[in-house]
Amino acid sequence: MEEPTGWLAVVREVFMTIGILAFAFSGALLAVQKRMDVVGMAGLAVVTATGGGMMRDLLIGATPVAALVDWWMLLVALGGAALVLLLHRWLSRLDRPVLVFDAIGLGIFAVEGARKAIEHDVPPVGAAFVGMLTGIGGGVLRDALANDIPAVFRKESRLYLVPALLGASAASAAVWLGWGNWVVLAIIAGLVSAMRIASELLRWRVPSLKTEAIDIVRD
Amino acid sequence: MEEPTGWLAVVREVFMTIGILAFAFSGALLAVQKRMDVVGMAGLAVVTATGGGMMRDLLIGATPVAALVDWWMLLVALGGAALVLLLHRWLSRLDRPVLVFDAIGLGIFAVEGARKAIEHDVPPVGAAFVGMLTGIGGGVLRDALANDIPAVFRKESRLYLVPALLGASAASAAVWLGWGNWVVLAIIAGLVSAMRIASELLRWRVPSLKTEAIDIVRD
Amino acid sequence: MEEPTGWLAVVREVFMTIGILAFAFSGALLAVQKRMDVVGMAGLAVVTATGGGMMRDLLIGATPVAALVDWWMLLVALGGAALVLLLHRWLSRLDRPVLVFDAIGLGIFAVEGARKAIEHDVPPVGAAFVGMLTGIGGGVLRDALANDIPAVFRKESRLYLVPALLGASAASAAVWLGWGNWVVLAIIAGLVSAMRIASELLRWRVPSLKTEAIDIVRD
Repeated sequence: MEEPTGWLAVVREVFMTIGILAFAFSGALLAVQKRMDVVGMAGLAVVTATGGGMMRDLLIGATPVAALVDWWMLLVALGGAALVLLLHRWLSRLDRPVLVFDAIGLGIFAVEGARKAIEHDVPPVGAAFVGMLTGIGGGVLRDALANDIPAVFRKESRLYLVPALLGASAASAAVWLGWGNWVVLAIIAGLVSAMRIASELLRWRVPSLKTEAIDIVRD
Repeated sequence: MEEPTGWLAVVREVFMTIGILAFAFSGALLAVQKRMDVVGMAGLAVVTATGGGMMRDLLIGATPVAALVDWWMLLVALGGAALVLLLHRWLSRLDRPVLVFDAIGLGIFAVEGARKAIEHDVPPVGAAFVGMLTGIGGGVLRDALANDIPAVFRKESRLYLVPALLGASAASAAVWLGWGNWVVLAIIAGLVSAMRIASELLRWRVPSLKTEAIDIVRD
Repeated sequence: MEEPTGWLAVVREVFMTIGILAFAFSGALLAVQKRMDVVGMAGLAVVTATGGGMMRDLLIGATPVAALVDWWMLLVALGGAALVLLLHRWLSRLDRPVLVFDAIGLGIFAVEGARKAIEHDVPPVGAAFVGMLTGIGGGVLRDALANDIPAVFRKESRLYLVPALLGASAASAAVWLGWGNWVVLAIIAGLVSAMRIASELLRWRVPSLKTEAIDIVRD
């Protein structure tokens, strides 16, 4: 299982760029809602777009982390923030495409994260966790810095962590079993994206306990 | 100073499991209080239970981090979240046992963290810091994600960081001096747990400055 | 490009100590404003003073991180918290000196961070990012733990990230081109400090989008 080369590498980087842009949009938009300045827009865009991959590389020990070596990712994320600055009047009409782009990013990051973890000798269950975190970590960091509870944890949220975890588990198992060729991984990534989009359109949600169900306060 | 084997390893893992469960409870319970869904309960349980150990391994360079390799910890943390989901009606009556379990976790994680840091060539003062962080790091991350100021920093908090730091310092010194056999480390861990429980029962607290004592605002 | 020795090393450590103290002050003062106890003051002082360097070392893979090995930094940060505890009555009159000290820290950390990243084989663009993060990372972590949006991202903030990024970029380019001797790096660090102080005195600010400019809510 090696890094892809040739047109495969190009295809992968095109999809990663789409994902990075969509993640950067969500960071820059939240920065505006939270009354941050353009430094905050750029900062939150970079954190959202590269934070998940940084967490992955830190936890598996692949340092310097990829976003520093393949620094085009940092520039794409900054480009995403610049696009929000220039195009904000039209972004509301682009809600649906941005959802699709974000879902593409979620799928490819979850699958790639699991694959990279297995290659760094992380056992399959750990690799599934790493892949999931690669997909959702940037958004969690974005929300923490914006002083929000992570969107993926909130009661009103649609499925986000769940498709990432399922896809990362499947990719992790496939690579571990030696079936992890690029066709299989691309199909898994596509299924993650499809499940994410379906969850938004069909209003899927996981259950919650009522707050009143617990009557103790622990600090 | 090697990793323990045989029944010693089993005893250690039993106590670590108790600590992981207690930490996972506190994460899952806070998730419910903060109106998160079951994904948030599972997420905050895993973060609280494994976050301190992950910080330890990242700072000392022991990667891939232990929770990915010894992935039973991730599953135990998820099990803790599941127990909260199933048993929440009875958890309020279990307040005292959970306090004791949490204190056991604090003791063993602080001591183990300091020991592991020394083994990775961290000097004793640094190792004491690492051990303390292993004990409290998961809870700090839990509170940051739940949009709270860390409980261990709050005015109304009982002693938590202080016993962890004292125990980690003692363990660090013991291992550095070559006295760090399992009997000594177990006694130190027990003292940390005892001090933590005593602090809650006897309402020990560290002092605070009054907010009015400072009259400048710095950003 | 080696680590400095002799009086150069002493000069560098004197300036780093000034920076660590100033960063520790800002952490301890925010802890008081946020109604934390003395544990919170010490904790936030250490996080603010050493957090940026820890992020740098984690991202470039220089572990165990410097603050654990050169543990005098942890003690200086604790000393900074102790000074706030003892001298808080007079700190309001020291607003200007503290601003200067903080600016010195920003300059030296940004430049040193970029230099260290280049030495760990990070390409120049990545190294500029690392240097910037070394300068601002501690403050971002401080604000996240204090439940604030990072000061460097806020609308009303003066320039802070921008001088750090410019200085880190210059230092990164200089070291990469082989011009990174200590005279050049010291001049760059001085310019960062000067720009930071000027931004506060002359009320420089970066622009922001109006919140009303975007009409979508994305989670």
